[in-house]
Amino acid sequence: MTDLIAMGIEAKAASRKLATLTTAQKNGALLAIADEIEAQADVVLAENEKDIADGRARGLTDALLDRLLLTEARVAGLAADARKIADLPDPVGVELESRLLSNGMRLSRRRIPIGVLGVIYEARPNVTIDIATLSLKTGNATILRGGSETLRSNLALVQVIQAALAKVGLPETAVQYIDNPDRELVAQLLRLDEYVDMLIPRGGSGLHKLCKEQSSIPVITGGIGICHLFVDETADLDNAVDIVENSKVQRPSVCNSLDTLLVHPAIAQDFLPRAAIRLAQSGVELRATGEAYDILYSHQHEAEVVPAGPEDFDQEWLSLILGVHLVADVDEAIAFIQAHTTEHTESILTNDWQNATKFVNELSSSAIFVNASTRFNDGGQFGLGAEVAVSTQKLHARGPMGLEELTTYKWIGYGDGHVRP
Amino acid sequence: MTDLIAMGIEAKAASRKLATLTTAQKNGALLAIADEIEAQADVVLAENEKDIADGRARGLTDALLDRLLLTEARVAGLAADARKIADLPDPVGVELESRLLSNGMRLSRRRIPIGVLGVIYEARPNVTIDIATLSLKTGNATILRGGSETLRSNLALVQVIQAALAKVGLPETAVQYIDNPDRELVAQLLRLDEYVDMLIPRGGSGLHKLCKEQSSIPVITGGIGICHLFVDETADLDNAVDIVENSKVQRPSVCNSLDTLLVHPAIAQDFLPRAAIRLAQSGVELRATGEAYDILYSHQHEAEVVPAGPEDFDQEWLSLILGVHLVADVDEAIAFIQAHTTEHTESILTNDWQNATKFVNELSSSAIFVNASTRFNDGGQFGLGAEVAVSTQKLHARGPMGLEELTTYKWIGYGDGHVRP
Repeated sequence: MTDLIAMGIEAKAASRKLATLTTAQKNGALLAIADEIEAQADVVLAENEKDIADGRARGLTDALLDRLLLTEARVAGLAADARKIADLPDPVGVELESRLLSNGMRLSRRRIPIGVLGVIYEARPNVTIDIATLSLKTGNATILRGGSETLRSNLALVQVIQAALAKVGLPETAVQYIDNPDRELVAQLLRLDEYVDMLIPRGGSGLHKLCKEQSSIPVITGGIGICHLFVDETADLDNAVDIVENSKVQRPSVCNSLDTLLVHPAIAQDFLPRAAIRLAQSGVELRATGEAYDILYSHQHEAEVVPAGPEDFDQEWLSLILGVHLVADVDEAIAFIQAHTTEHTESILTNDWQNATKFVNELSSSAIFVNASTRFNDGGQFGLGAEVAVSTQKLHARGPMGLEELTTYKWIGYGDGHVRP
Repeated sequence: MTDLIAMGIEAKAASRKLATLTTAQKNGALLAIADEIEAQADVVLAENEKDIADGRARGLTDALLDRLLLTEARVAGLAADARKIADLPDPVGVELESRLLSNGMRLSRRRIPIGVLGVIYEARPNVTIDIATLSLKTGNATILRGGSETLRSNLALVQVIQAALAKVGLPETAVQYIDNPDRELVAQLLRLDEYVDMLIPRGGSGLHKLCKEQSSIPVITGGIGICHLFVDETADLDNAVDIVENSKVQRPSVCNSLDTLLVHPAIAQDFLPRAAIRLAQSGVELRATGEAYDILYSHQHEAEVVPAGPEDFDQEWLSLILGVHLVADVDEAIAFIQAHTTEHTESILTNDWQNATKFVNELSSSAIFVNASTRFNDGGQFGLGAEVAVSTQKLHARGPMGLEELTTYKWIGYGDGHVRP
């Protein structure tokens, strides 16, 4: 019987140990994990093979099986990733501000680990290494709960991590895994607020909704992007075709890919057929309203276009489908976006300074672009070094979360016998 | 029938209007509120008088009635506070960082309002003005729910605010109040995540617990402080008596007042009786364990001392009671604090550099002091200009929250036809 409270107590104790480690000690643990991954690659691959065989027997799609699959090259990649995280700067210990108050007290605000992170994730086993190493780098303990499809792979990887932690003299309980597939344990984890300081769901909208509604632990919600791109009448249309293609087609299954294309009527006759031709090359299906549909339909030999249904603009496609709608001007574009967005990513293509400014100022999504692809809302692209998750909520962090977002801070006041007047 | 969804829709629409206001417009609203408070002081005082009469009839204590009471001077104070907030710097629009990425995109991170704040508070009607003005200053709309004891006073103040908003051409729905005392509406408010971006409970631990457990909206929990002070063997004992008195007695009803005094055995015989004499002057009751009790009992003519019960160290006293316990050294002090703290405020009194460093580094409470009173964990003392709440959670904000903590940020990327490679 999995005892989550016991795991929580162990995790909290481990987190206190981790919080006092030097950067060199934490990096030493990451390098030990990388070495151990390489040393135990055969074990990990053998366990993954069993997961894959089970998945095939259960009729999982080839696409999903490929996401679950570990190969020698992928395992080598996991070790390389752990070494890469060791190379990143350590955000813990940085003093965000410090000053001598007028009363002579020296006040500072210092970054510290958050403590214990609960992470619930689906499918890919690389998340196990990813989250464990990012958390160790920032001095946080973790309680992990991965998908049942890769239970054996995840357990093998957690054993690798714990073996490495033991070798460098750190508590193995710094990274724990809930190995019981009973879904009731997820519900229990969501109420473990006495021990878990932050919950990160990594999965679909159902998981995020469950966490938001059921968790008594603060949750980082995000990763769900209904992303918009507005092609204004002054946009460079050649460039607009490139950007729309890049936004939609480069990696359609991720959260920063384009879902809805908004177009100014003055350029719709010119632009939409050109965009349609390009998108057709990648097999994109267009779902268009009214006038946009009429324009596209008259060019239907170039692209597949169907009339948009009422719910087509409130959906994250994660596939080669694109909603298309005409809006009279930037104000109507903003209003449309505000009515349908999940506040992930929006972009405007324009050469009109005023429209660009208005779009940037009035929308409040986690990232707003001018004359650029929606695909840039990404920790790597923003130079954060690592991406833990993409937050679309308003508290703590927004947009791509790097290592800093796995920390909090404490105030430190050095007095000299100070009493408050 | 109060329609919270309709209120949520109105609040969200108002928040979008507020987010685009200039600092001058927002300050204009605050000054208009100050003027309107003065102009309608008689109405507010008359409504408050009815609340007080009701409260007296219901048998509320004199202490509570005094907290609910508005006087001409207190109403003038509300107007002065609104003007003071107008004078503070506006955190919205500040760009936290900006740089040209290596690909030529200019990336910045800009502070923006959070959106719609839900605030649930108890007792004092000044919170209505306080929260409304802090929120308007930061471009946030609010849905307020105050205690039933001051319903009429709160409604009068909200009408004052809305009249002022109308005068300066802003939506009255920027500040809304749930005027129906039905407790079911609190439960509904906690699930209004589609419209409310952040929930701030201001009240006792029961309210915080309710919000943490029931809310699907991110909650700022805090304001509950089981605060510790450790007098090390090297402390200046005269000064220690002053600091312990200040921490416990200056304002015992607030969250940063001292709850538990930890003392090194080497100085206990000398220090405890001296502290007891001073604390007795203010009528403090000591609840002491083992050896601490024995020492204090032998001086009982000076102070009231009773044996500490098992739960006396897991309680925020908010009154003139102080737990006393001996710990062998700084390590035992840290372990004791970790076992009992709510992570609000801790202090060490010492002249030992190593012990001070250890105490500061190993504890993770929202504020840690060396040789200073616990009472300094306060937005005013830290120079934040205003205090919205004191957070003891790990996400978003910790310790005193000022205006900046009522904001979030968005990423802005200015491209020039950028597609992701």
